[in-house]
Amino acid sequence: MHRHRSNLGTLLHHVHVAGPLSRAALADRMGVNRSTILALTTELAAAGLVCEQPPTGTSGAGRPSLVVRPAPGVFVLAFDVAVDRLTAARVGLGGPVLSRLTAPRPRAGVDLDTVVARLAAMGRELLDAAPAGATCVGVGAAYCGMIRPGDGMVRYGPDLGWVDQAFGRELARALGAGLPVAVGNEAHLGAIAEFERGAGVGCPDLIYLHGDVGVGGGILVGGKLLGGESGYGCEVGHMLVNPVGGRPCLCGSHGCLEAETGEYALLAAAGRPPGPIGREAIRAVVDDPSAAGAVAEIGDWLGVGVASLINLFNPGVVIFGGMLRDLYPAAAPQVAARIAEHAMPVSRERAVLRLSALADDATLLGAAELAFGPLLADPLHR
Amino acid sequence: MHRHRSNLGTLLHHVHVAGPLSRAALADRMGVNRSTILALTTELAAAGLVCEQPPTGTSGAGRPSLVVRPAPGVFVLAFDVAVDRLTAARVGLGGPVLSRLTAPRPRAGVDLDTVVARLAAMGRELLDAAPAGATCVGVGAAYCGMIRPGDGMVRYGPDLGWVDQAFGRELARALGAGLPVAVGNEAHLGAIAEFERGAGVGCPDLIYLHGDVGVGGGILVGGKLLGGESGYGCEVGHMLVNPVGGRPCLCGSHGCLEAETGEYALLAAAGRPPGPIGREAIRAVVDDPSAAGAVAEIGDWLGVGVASLINLFNPGVVIFGGMLRDLYPAAAPQVAARIAEHAMPVSRERAVLRLSALADDATLLGAAELAFGPLLADPLHR
Repeated sequence: MHRHRSNLGTLLHHVHVAGPLSRAALADRMGVNRSTILALTTELAAAGLVCEQPPTGTSGAGRPSLVVRPAPGVFVLAFDVAVDRLTAARVGLGGPVLSRLTAPRPRAGVDLDTVVARLAAMGRELLDAAPAGATCVGVGAAYCGMIRPGDGMVRYGPDLGWVDQAFGRELARALGAGLPVAVGNEAHLGAIAEFERGAGVGCPDLIYLHGDVGVGGGILVGGKLLGGESGYGCEVGHMLVNPVGGRPCLCGSHGCLEAETGEYALLAAAGRPPGPIGREAIRAVVDDPSAAGAVAEIGDWLGVGVASLINLFNPGVVIFGGMLRDLYPAAAPQVAARIAEHAMPVSRERAVLRLSALADDATLLGAAELAFGPLLADPLHR
Repeated sequence: MHRHRSNLGTLLHHVHVAGPLSRAALADRMGVNRSTILALTTELAAAGLVCEQPPTGTSGAGRPSLVVRPAPGVFVLAFDVAVDRLTAARVGLGGPVLSRLTAPRPRAGVDLDTVVARLAAMGRELLDAAPAGATCVGVGAAYCGMIRPGDGMVRYGPDLGWVDQAFGRELARALGAGLPVAVGNEAHLGAIAEFERGAGVGCPDLIYLHGDVGVGGGILVGGKLLGGESGYGCEVGHMLVNPVGGRPCLCGSHGCLEAETGEYALLAAAGRPPGPIGREAIRAVVDDPSAAGAVAEIGDWLGVGVASLINLFNPGVVIFGGMLRDLYPAAAPQVAARIAEHAMPVSRERAVLRLSALADDATLLGAAELAFGPLLADPLHR
């Protein structure tokens, strides 16, 4: 029975990640016979989780083989609390963003109650607008801070100044949908999303770096998120790259990777005022030829960090997300030079550097993956 | 059948790691009933892998309950190629070092053939002296370099100047015992041994730092060694702690953790000639009050490295092994200060710092664990 339940989840995960698959393809991927696939599919279809349809673009004689695809009415609610915006979305089984609402995040007045009320209103609006018959199977949220697994407590969120705020519990209460809210660190969730359906597909040893005001990290080791003793692993942004005389960091230390490569560092290196930050300010610096020296300086520190990470993790891929999608292409020569100088040849021989494929949706889609977790683990008894 | 095989291995692993256990204790640990334990024990005893005996120290009336313990005749051959010595040992199921041979490692003339011939001679001597009826079930070796999983190729061993040397294959051939030789990085193996039976028991998120000329690292994430894409993860010694103007490293880079905290760095900081290194030289510096400044300087860099590792891995325990067993107690104030300064409070709140419990045997016992691996995975069909 346990095997059967696990097979149900595995099949559902395959169509969730890979899209429509024939029964033959499913049998092949799962290493079971077609009659098992038929039984599993029948059960999942009866539960409204998958449907079987002719493949698109079929032509020619004979009855086309049916494909199994995610049922269109199954969705989760995903939230993303980013540095400059709040996002809520309905994300369908299979990964499509079905509808979304985005609001600029106020720079001040960002206490727990305010943020939760704003998000809950967005979430309810999306739920109310969902088609009749559609089912919300979970809720997930990405947050730029250190999150306690299990209850979604924000232990430390320097950007909003949150310490030990019961974000997950309060958002669930305010939403009032009768569902718990699973919360994860945004970079952790970005790593998972890139692995499932982005630039890291097929790379179970993956490092995802998410830049904004800070630099977050999500690291997969053998396909699993590096959680550590209590779930607070992957604080890549606070790896020291310049402990002697480095720039002060929001965390109270100095010389952290995020202090040397985050938005404040780039603007300061370029001689810009520390005023409005965000993607536009970053792009303005990256696109300004007179700021090339600043970009190179930041790129050097980024390269130092990436070289250390390659030595520590022997990753298959390092993925640049968030504002690092803008910075990395401009700083790639410095990053490459530092890797050549500091990363062990054996450690770096198979490491590839890539931009995020999911772009601004990486963290949101990671929150959706978190929300789909219980369904995929046990489709009929979640 | 697969479940049964897995249960046989699990039972054998329990008595291997925990020592003699009653059937009731085994049933409890494995979550199966006593009749299953009886069947498994009978099968393992018939294969000569365990025996049942009255517990020691039993007194009083009634028949004492039997305990299951590792059979005394089952052993592996374990080798350790350290910076200053070569060791070969017979290690019994359950972990006891039954007999050992140690030779100083020559500083020059350390080509593959010479080292392999020396180790093979030591190994054959131990095998020849084994009691009649004793069985060698595997061979493992710890080596201070980057090892390719699968075939024991030394990809990079800077201390001996080895690059792509077929150490595992050649040692197996020279030993002529009809057994393959499993090779692992010494710090990786030290981490595993400390987790199984040392300072890291019960801590699946563990960092083991092994100091000698270099600084090696073994990191367990969720109880598994961090291997990375190709098995070369955990190169903690080449995490950059001082990229600007740091000391040159044997790897060709500079400012690596091992360049700032290894034996050469300590001797240089203390104004000692870079001549004979090894444990005695380290202890002489640590015990010399006039070298306190040098110890503090090295301790600061060690603390920078440990702080970054705590932020990255959120470990339950950080274990100091090799020559760091001598250095760390003297440098603990600096390490603690750097952790307080640079490690995130949430990341460090449950991290404990400890000395290796297995001391000079950590890497050797790790090699033995590697050698026991196939037996424990499938006791009857290895």
